[in-house]
Amino acid sequence: MRRVITLTTDFGIDDAYVASMKGVILSINPEANIVDISHAIKPQDILQAAFTLSTTHHFFPSGTTHVVVVDPGVGSDRKALLVRTPLAYYIAPDNGVLSYALHEFLPDAVVSNDSGIPKPRSLPLAAPAEAWILSNPAYWNHTVSSTFHGRDIFASVAAHLSTGIPVTELGSPTGSITAYPLLQPFIDSDGTTIGIVLHIDIFGNIITNIRREDISSQNVTMEIGERHIEGISRFYAEKDGFIALIDSSNYLEIALKNGNAASTIGISIGDTVKIWPT
Amino acid sequence: MRRVITLTTDFGIDDAYVASMKGVILSINPEANIVDISHAIKPQDILQAAFTLSTTHHFFPSGTTHVVVVDPGVGSDRKALLVRTPLAYYIAPDNGVLSYALHEFLPDAVVSNDSGIPKPRSLPLAAPAEAWILSNPAYWNHTVSSTFHGRDIFASVAAHLSTGIPVTELGSPTGSITAYPLLQPFIDSDGTTIGIVLHIDIFGNIITNIRREDISSQNVTMEIGERHIEGISRFYAEKDGFIALIDSSNYLEIALKNGNAASTIGISIGDTVKIWPT
Amino acid sequence: MRRVITLTTDFGIDDAYVASMKGVILSINPEANIVDISHAIKPQDILQAAFTLSTTHHFFPSGTTHVVVVDPGVGSDRKALLVRTPLAYYIAPDNGVLSYALHEFLPDAVVSNDSGIPKPRSLPLAAPAEAWILSNPAYWNHTVSSTFHGRDIFASVAAHLSTGIPVTELGSPTGSITAYPLLQPFIDSDGTTIGIVLHIDIFGNIITNIRREDISSQNVTMEIGERHIEGISRFYAEKDGFIALIDSSNYLEIALKNGNAASTIGISIGDTVKIWPT
Repeated sequence: MRRVITLTTDFGIDDAYVASMKGVILSINPEANIVDISHAIKPQDILQAAFTLSTTHHFFPSGTTHVVVVDPGVGSDRKALLVRTPLAYYIAPDNGVLSYALHEFLPDAVVSNDSGIPKPRSLPLAAPAEAWILSNPAYWNHTVSSTFHGRDIFASVAAHLSTGIPVTELGSPTGSITAYPLLQPFIDSDGTTIGIVLHIDIFGNIITNIRREDISSQNVTMEIGERHIEGISRFYAEKDGFIALIDSSNYLEIALKNGNAASTIGISIGDTVKIWPT
Repeated sequence: MRRVITLTTDFGIDDAYVASMKGVILSINPEANIVDISHAIKPQDILQAAFTLSTTHHFFPSGTTHVVVVDPGVGSDRKALLVRTPLAYYIAPDNGVLSYALHEFLPDAVVSNDSGIPKPRSLPLAAPAEAWILSNPAYWNHTVSSTFHGRDIFASVAAHLSTGIPVTELGSPTGSITAYPLLQPFIDSDGTTIGIVLHIDIFGNIITNIRREDISSQNVTMEIGERHIEGISRFYAEKDGFIALIDSSNYLEIALKNGNAASTIGISIGDTVKIWPT
Repeated sequence: MRRVITLTTDFGIDDAYVASMKGVILSINPEANIVDISHAIKPQDILQAAFTLSTTHHFFPSGTTHVVVVDPGVGSDRKALLVRTPLAYYIAPDNGVLSYALHEFLPDAVVSNDSGIPKPRSLPLAAPAEAWILSNPAYWNHTVSSTFHGRDIFASVAAHLSTGIPVTELGSPTGSITAYPLLQPFIDSDGTTIGIVLHIDIFGNIITNIRREDISSQNVTMEIGERHIEGISRFYAEKDGFIALIDSSNYLEIALKNGNAASTIGISIGDTVKIWPT
């Protein structure tokens, strides 16, 4: 079946690691349509992978399988996971890398960002999402290395799934998965909304965890680093200098026209952003 | 239909922007065959994208759709464009990014390079090429962000076109498009041909706007920076040191055997190159 | 036919060189399934390309065509090669770039690494592998540039092959190919195995030419640079600091937990690694 399988890894594209995953997939299902999401996740940066997947999975055809391999615990006793939602399948190590994509099915996974980035923990997965531990070696490569489960387990299982093997064949059900709580902005006693920087993209645009629905008016002032920005713009070219806008994933984003906002301001992931009505 | 859709953007491949375009395309046409041309265009460098597309579009199957998204004016009143030629379809913001690929259909778009790089302007498009302004939102994503038309308009329209939707459904015809005049070398009073550097590739090879047909003899001297090069070589390994040759896109190119010509000479795009019969 | 064609080059992904190869392939065989192995081979680094291909070709479907274009001699009198094995087809300049992938068919191509990296030479290819010189221009592009055989010969021939053109149509048979001898570790008079660094991957992991079968016991000491490592670990997360393990391609590899082993130790390709029973 011509099913879409996406790949998100920290393997880079210089070595042949990603190619080996694709070879394994095509050996099992020659009709699989493999799409790269990103292989430039910083080595072992689980949260960056989780964010990246969450910005794109809604745009893929229903039934797509998303394989995410950012896996510092490969070969240890961390579990391998398959999750099915009404939208898609997700195959990944059980280390929190699916936290953002699955947040609507992780009702207990929301915390305020007032105490820094929390540790991942085992959290119940809500219906209609379902999860399985990938425990059936019949669908793995013949020889499983202890250092490259991306090739030997995750790619192999994704390919078998895309040929129509039922999920129940691939492992045993589990009611909870490892997840990072989703950090939500909180409102201070004086009415200021306080969020954090979630991501900095390749243009240097600063993406925060403040969403469209957290902002009640266009008449706002933002504080990021030592910089203040007035008002919400509609698009990048609207005015010169720093602008704030709601980006294509519904996050409040700070950009610099014809420039790199993050390096100009000197901001990092996890830094604080404040916004208040003017 | 299994039609080829190519993508050329300045989005990089670290974030999921390109992946979202691919997801949108495959959601509309699961049979589309998506090929990356380059996502490493320098941010907002319209001319680099125009040059890159022009070196490759002739090698794709007839009827391929080339989507080019280098779009600093996204969300403003710049138009979205579809052009059809006997070779291919082109979908892009109307900002000059198709200038080089379409130069044979832009008869008024040729100027001498003796007065620097000119501004883009509205220029008539000659038959058999035809253009449309993409004005029919029925073929866009349901929600169109003001910051990511690559995903919400260009990818979506390209996918619908590849399913067989007629071009006349997608927008309204226009007789002219925004284009950069094509810079042509000129001949000085003493017979010297004066051109400019158009592009520097990943090897540091220097590609000029002087073409095979501008050079009447192999017995020439070239001047670039403070360096002189004698004669035209046939291939890179022909001799040591700096060589000039006609490259695979028919441009005069300066290369350095086992080295980076551009950084060694210290040359930039737009710099002057001179060539005269010896 | 929906056959897999892989590409390994030093062209990078910034320019449109790789895209032009894909356009040529799809113009000839619209059903070809093109997979990138790597385009980040260091310019003209034949051995890096040879190593990269050898780590991944076994994972592709039987009958895959691997096109490798690292070709400093393009346009000179170096030959263009097609090799068929029971596993796959290989299309490349005849310059040694297939040395590692074909080593089981190059019985005379093994030397000890005690005298540095040897030069490539003409070596007999053993059955069942067979080779042809690509000498039939009927299957090349109409106009063959002298600088881009990747596009004009190698991609074109690979595409024709994938449509079912018999190999005997594409050129004339040859009994030997240019190959680098495969460097093997040797055992010193005191029982120490002495190998070299073959490759450093994107994580900074150090891959040596010592293989699983060269190591008789888990109780070993390794010396690399001025560093000593005790024992063989099973996976990356097993312990902190430097670890040695057998990697997913069966090579002895040195890694640093949450770090870059190669830059921390200060090691380069070709450097010596020693291992002895403890």
